[in-house]
Amino acid sequence: MMAWNRMIVAAGVGTLLGLAVLRADEGMWTFDNPPRQQWRERYQFEPSDAWLDHLRLSSIRLIDGSSGGSASFVSPDGLILTNQHVAAGQLQKLSTATRDLVRDGYYAATRDAELKLPDLEANVLVSYEDVTGRVQGAVRPGASDAEAAAARRATIATIEKDSLDRTGLRSDVVTLYAGGEYWLYRYKKYTDLRLVFAPEEQIAYFGGDYDNFTFPRHDLDITFLRAYDNGQPVKTAHHLRWSPTGAVDGEFIVLSGLPGSTDRLLTMTQIAYQRDVGNPLQKRVWEARRNTLLAYGRNSPEAARRAASTVRSLENSLKRLVGQQQGLANPRIISRKADDEASLRRAVAANPAWQSAYGGAWTRLDTLYRDVPALAPRLAFSTLAPSRLGGYATTLVRYEREAQKPSDERLDEFRDSRLEALRFSLLSTAPVYPDMEEAVLTGWLAEARAVLGPDDPFVRAALQGREPPLVAREVVAGTTLADVAARRRLLDEGVSTSADPLIELARRIDPIGRELREWQDSTLRSVEASAGQQIAGARFAVLGKSVYPDATFTLRLGYGRVLGYEEDTTLVPWKTTFYGLYDRAEGFAEKPPFTLPARWKARRDRLALGTPLNFVYTADTIGGNSGSPIVNRAGDLVGLNFDSNQQKLANRYLYIDEAEGSRAIAIHSAAVLEALAKVYDAAPLVRELTPPAAATR
Amino acid sequence: MMAWNRMIVAAGVGTLLGLAVLRADEGMWTFDNPPRQQWRERYQFEPSDAWLDHLRLSSIRLIDGSSGGSASFVSPDGLILTNQHVAAGQLQKLSTATRDLVRDGYYAATRDAELKLPDLEANVLVSYEDVTGRVQGAVRPGASDAEAAAARRATIATIEKDSLDRTGLRSDVVTLYAGGEYWLYRYKKYTDLRLVFAPEEQIAYFGGDYDNFTFPRHDLDITFLRAYDNGQPVKTAHHLRWSPTGAVDGEFIVLSGLPGSTDRLLTMTQIAYQRDVGNPLQKRVWEARRNTLLAYGRNSPEAARRAASTVRSLENSLKRLVGQQQGLANPRIISRKADDEASLRRAVAANPAWQSAYGGAWTRLDTLYRDVPALAPRLAFSTLAPSRLGGYATTLVRYEREAQKPSDERLDEFRDSRLEALRFSLLSTAPVYPDMEEAVLTGWLAEARAVLGPDDPFVRAALQGREPPLVAREVVAGTTLADVAARRRLLDEGVSTSADPLIELARRIDPIGRELREWQDSTLRSVEASAGQQIAGARFAVLGKSVYPDATFTLRLGYGRVLGYEEDTTLVPWKTTFYGLYDRAEGFAEKPPFTLPARWKARRDRLALGTPLNFVYTADTIGGNSGSPIVNRAGDLVGLNFDSNQQKLANRYLYIDEAEGSRAIAIHSAAVLEALAKVYDAAPLVRELTPPAAATR
Repeated sequence: MMAWNRMIVAAGVGTLLGLAVLRADEGMWTFDNPPRQQWRERYQFEPSDAWLDHLRLSSIRLIDGSSGGSASFVSPDGLILTNQHVAAGQLQKLSTATRDLVRDGYYAATRDAELKLPDLEANVLVSYEDVTGRVQGAVRPGASDAEAAAARRATIATIEKDSLDRTGLRSDVVTLYAGGEYWLYRYKKYTDLRLVFAPEEQIAYFGGDYDNFTFPRHDLDITFLRAYDNGQPVKTAHHLRWSPTGAVDGEFIVLSGLPGSTDRLLTMTQIAYQRDVGNPLQKRVWEARRNTLLAYGRNSPEAARRAASTVRSLENSLKRLVGQQQGLANPRIISRKADDEASLRRAVAANPAWQSAYGGAWTRLDTLYRDVPALAPRLAFSTLAPSRLGGYATTLVRYEREAQKPSDERLDEFRDSRLEALRFSLLSTAPVYPDMEEAVLTGWLAEARAVLGPDDPFVRAALQGREPPLVAREVVAGTTLADVAARRRLLDEGVSTSADPLIELARRIDPIGRELREWQDSTLRSVEASAGQQIAGARFAVLGKSVYPDATFTLRLGYGRVLGYEEDTTLVPWKTTFYGLYDRAEGFAEKPPFTLPARWKARRDRLALGTPLNFVYTADTIGGNSGSPIVNRAGDLVGLNFDSNQQKLANRYLYIDEAEGSRAIAIHSAAVLEALAKVYDAAPLVRELTPPAAATR
Repeated sequence: MMAWNRMIVAAGVGTLLGLAVLRADEGMWTFDNPPRQQWRERYQFEPSDAWLDHLRLSSIRLIDGSSGGSASFVSPDGLILTNQHVAAGQLQKLSTATRDLVRDGYYAATRDAELKLPDLEANVLVSYEDVTGRVQGAVRPGASDAEAAAARRATIATIEKDSLDRTGLRSDVVTLYAGGEYWLYRYKKYTDLRLVFAPEEQIAYFGGDYDNFTFPRHDLDITFLRAYDNGQPVKTAHHLRWSPTGAVDGEFIVLSGLPGSTDRLLTMTQIAYQRDVGNPLQKRVWEARRNTLLAYGRNSPEAARRAASTVRSLENSLKRLVGQQQGLANPRIISRKADDEASLRRAVAANPAWQSAYGGAWTRLDTLYRDVPALAPRLAFSTLAPSRLGGYATTLVRYEREAQKPSDERLDEFRDSRLEALRFSLLSTAPVYPDMEEAVLTGWLAEARAVLGPDDPFVRAALQGREPPLVAREVVAGTTLADVAARRRLLDEGVSTSADPLIELARRIDPIGRELREWQDSTLRSVEASAGQQIAGARFAVLGKSVYPDATFTLRLGYGRVLGYEEDTTLVPWKTTFYGLYDRAEGFAEKPPFTLPARWKARRDRLALGTPLNFVYTADTIGGNSGSPIVNRAGDLVGLNFDSNQQKLANRYLYIDEAEGSRAIAIHSAAVLEALAKVYDAAPLVRELTPPAAATR
């Protein structure tokens, strides 16, 4: 699965292009700089501006707390297509002990039956503007790294605030090319999103964690939502036309989506840190969280249901991380990175002007990274974020203090321009399960103590010498934060006088979190930013500027071909079919996770079994691209991205060439229509996707 | 494919068990020493002697020139089941420009329509007798290695001759445990074998060279033959009962067949030789032959047809060899071998008596192997064997000389006891294609000159300074050996006065071949035999005697479980189904080699698509085991072995544990019935396999 979860351990600057020469189908390109030359030369593809605008305005960023994914409009009435696994968190929040939308899926045959999602936000990138001059111009000559960073942050906050006030649009200044460019992105925002259709998780995620990040694959990982405004479906002139025949072998395709983050410009020092410290620590964090939830889920079927979607998301993150680590252990891959860096440094050293301007960057990072390993466990564990209530409490405590400062001096997420999103997330109507919160907090505090030791400041402040289960029980039992109204009251009236025990816990740990955040913002990120900017400059100087920025969960274009590959001495075909689904289910006698939903068995004979189900293609994607629409030259939707294979996972650190078998994985547009019509009796939805007029075009 | 081709490069002694401790399901056991203890302890399986006798007497060795495979009786009327790829050489020989039994398959709905095969021999092991004492006792104390070898050979020839004369049965003395044991094996021999059923190669070998040695797999690699005697089907009281339901997940199975050869007792010196010299040379030989045939096949569809089955066999050998080499390049595998050897040598060195008896073996082999690499190319290329006519000529020339000696002094294959088999092979009615012979001989002589150089004795004798195409054209145009009657005449009357140009060529190279053969017999094999015997002695001393001998194309028992495995982070199920066949064909849009025969498309809807097609299991098998019957505890046939996956290929050199994903691959017995009934309308054959009475048992 390619949903994106923000990595919690500081990951390094991650900028620009990590390779000396662009490889086939490489790149996650911004819409202001599409790879027109590659398209023209390699694929004779020369889209008009209108073609690109239409794709961009049909593309959607979905934000669900600290994770997110991609989506697109697929009808004039605000119908949205994304992956089931991107929407799974919302499905989970809409479910109850007696109505499990994750397990059983959902289909609203009429508009009235469409279910409002608790706290999902959709963004459409309606305009963008280069503000590099303003942001970089704000830094006075001779400023230190920290001063420069502060000046940039203040200017960014002002730009965002001005834009929001003037346009009413969500306005984010995004940093690209490690600070080589700054862009103001304006988004049309939708917060009234409703569930139209989700399949049973067993078919969306057939094969479960085993089949995740592999191919051949057999998943109908789709969900349809609808955007509403003022209680009415949004009219979306820009939406993608559905191709009933879908992707074909070898064809050129473009995808538009939100790759979450790549780190292709890390130096070898930073890579070694990730491999030896950052990733193993991240693994420990995710494993601890998953294990806690698995243990909790064993209490009852209802507990298992409550924990399921988070467990699935953590397993996805873990499997991806293991794959990335294997990539970093692959001598062929790591030596390509090392060769690239050595070449660049040689070129810089050979030119005195370059050496003077850029040459010091690597040494500065080496020095910085001497300190990072010691702090990394504290950065990873000094938080209550794994508990939803703990996260609310932390935000409320911090908000009260930040709100007293001018907007441009606050921590980024508390700027005026971000407050609306913060309120939306904090005031979510999603259910909170106190027993699960208690289990999560207990497990987390115990793991933090095990890793950091009992004398660590965070551990001392959080536990005050008591045992994790006791602390967790007390704060969860005593808090009112599970109640939305209570959260609204504390947000509006402040927490300074609150005696809520969870607020008190958050207050005790806040200074520790702030101190670490201060180090991250003023030391780690500012040195990384300025060294990264130098290395970016070196690359521009040595290699020229036909490059793309590292992924930042902003809208990008990818492209490539629908193409099988060779593995284990044989060929892997470009697609699977419904035949393959039934083969695999039968092969395992439907033992979980290879079970088929009942209706898929009952209706097997209705299906055209040769219909393509999933397919692979060569575009450059990463987590966050889940739900990205895939279009053909005509701009018609031929597939929906949802995953990558194992061979691709190391592409966080460098582009993995198609010759290595690296592939993205998509759901075929024909499979969606076939399943909706034959398995789900969803004729109205099929008609909405393929209106009669479309057939003649 | 697991058919067996004799390796032409001297391969080392290959004996005994290469591991300190028996691993799960390890071993290719002789029927005189079945692994009763493992069966009892691990699987609570305690078969009666009658159970084992029945399996042995139902099992068949098939010999087709220098290659062969396994088979079994499956009806009381002499019906034989084997793989299509084992019978493919015969199908090829039965085919003509207008009747292609390889491509189109064949079904004899009546006995009259059954087609006699040109030169396939079937053997059933009817009795065996330990003759170790007689053979070893023939060596006088103090004999040199060469004298000892000659004495053993003479005694073996006498034993075989006596047995043949007394019983009329094919009588072979086989060397087991590197000469630790000698057994007289007596075979009932069938040479009137007829073709009953073969499927289209496209379904027998669906996926072609790509899918060969991989799993999941979708091949109906079966052929039915019938044994005749005096023009009547043989009555076979011993035959395997067909299981209509077939193998099930996890069940214990036994297979009975003819593993061709393993080299699990090679020393590290011998392994290094194989890896660095022997295997690369073998690869070059096979590639040269394949390339010649591919080039020839491009002349016309008919030429392609003539070359096809040999090309397929060579590609099979090459893919297997590459997999074996990858195994030898795997540090985990090679270090296991090295550790085993080091442990054994330490144990020997620690015991003065052992050290004195066995300690010198490794050094002797090290000394011997200093000379082998220089001779290896000459051993590989100083032959006309790749050309069928060249092989005939060589045999005729050599036969005349050998026949003048007493039987026990002849080269092994010319002993009295072997002459009948030699005549059978030499007087084959299989068609000879002079244009293909010329192409093969041209290509081979050119490659020999390229490898050995123009001054090599073989090259000089063969070419006499002329160009390969000229020599090949001349000898093929002038020879009468394509005619069976001519060969019979030369065999009976001698070749000494023959002016046949191919006989003259064979006569010119004969001294060179003899000289090399003499070195192999008197130096290489005799040192390997005596050093091997020492190492075997060391293993018996250190490890005890609960072991199995290396494979020697004699009848063996294997066992294990029907079991899937993990690969590429996901699970591979234990079986495929017809669903999977259609999925894979559809996935490649039926591009070759993923084409479906017409009737498989036309009759798709008749098939129960969930029927198991192929399955994997853990038994220890190797090339030669193709066609081995797989039986359950009841002794019923549940599957038919035909291949291994990639993970297993290095098991030539050591047993690869099931935990590494090493698996053998079989055709499921249910798939055979389903296909015969629904695709081939072969109701009589289905009835013969599953007579009404069987249903009630």
